[in-house]
Amino acid sequence: MKDLKDYVRTIPDFPEKGIMFRDITSVLQDPDGFHLAIETMQNMVADLDFDVVLGAESRGFIFSAPIAYNRGKALVPVRKKGKLPCETIEVEYDLEYGKAVLELHKDAIKPGQKVLLVDDLMATGGTIEAMIKLVEKLGGEVAGVAVLMELKGLNGRERIKNYRLDAAISYEGK
Amino acid sequence: MKDLKDYVRTIPDFPEKGIMFRDITSVLQDPDGFHLAIETMQNMVADLDFDVVLGAESRGFIFSAPIAYNRGKALVPVRKKGKLPCETIEVEYDLEYGKAVLELHKDAIKPGQKVLLVDDLMATGGTIEAMIKLVEKLGGEVAGVAVLMELKGLNGRERIKNYRLDAAISYEGK
Repeated sequence: MKDLKDYVRTIPDFPEKGIMFRDITSVLQDPDGFHLAIETMQNMVADLDFDVVLGAESRGFIFSAPIAYNRGKALVPVRKKGKLPCETIEVEYDLEYGKAVLELHKDAIKPGQKVLLVDDLMATGGTIEAMIKLVEKLGGEVAGVAVLMELKGLNGRERIKNYRLDAAISYEGK
Repeated sequence: MKDLKDYVRTIPDFPEKGIMFRDITSVLQDPDGFHLAIETMQNMVADLDFDVVLGAESRGFIFSAPIAYNRGKALVPVRKKGKLPCETIEVEYDLEYGKAVLELHKDAIKPGQKVLLVDDLMATGGTIEAMIKLVEKLGGEVAGVAVLMELKGLNGRERIKNYRLDAAISYEGK
């Protein structure tokens, strides 16, 4: 049986020299790969108690939606600035070059709700940290963080060390 | 029991006067609403034979991913220009103001594969038409189109009248 990592396509020197780009579309476009990815992530969080799944735009939606549906939970999207139509709260965070803003609807999470954060990738941890801030601003409780892939060389885990993080695949590098 | 439409939040005069904005985040953030949305879409396509689910960035991922997972199929993302790392084909399409480009990995669909197209919304049908062109450029066969919501007043159905379209919710207006 193939391992989940076997479905990941690695593109050397993309987008720049020295970076090993881990492409997840090769996981998704194989029915067995996609099934194994979702199943692995669901198993990682099987023991976690949560009310809401928070998914980050846009690849985070691919993993958060099946998990929320299969667990019978709500799905709350975190989006880039200007995409959500109702009243929002926002958090600014650093990208490699410049800054970005993530938004969340003010009524999307109620105080005391337990929230599972889902994204495709944890690299520097900037997006995850921004999601945590959004949840806590609304009085929600972070139950855990689940990602398909973790790039350990970027030390994102350090940044969110007070929270539980599960990754289906880990790479030592960047 | 609530109807799927009951979960949709309507925001009058957004983003401009005269537009009734149909917000789907209120469907997602209610566990019953989200469950009903996915279940309804799955039932719509229960009789369809397809190999691949094609989901449009970014809200299309929310509906395409659970359907692909639950049917044991591949998920192929259609993305905005510059997001896919390998060799792509692209299609330009009209937005209300200006143009946009959608891309698909060249190896994502094999000739003869049957493809189900999934998105959250069919308005003018521009995105759906672009997705159809991408699939057919690669020799794939469009098995059908499934959307959560159709705005009938914009006549998108006219534009893709040679293809099967199923919508979980329909509004007469724009």
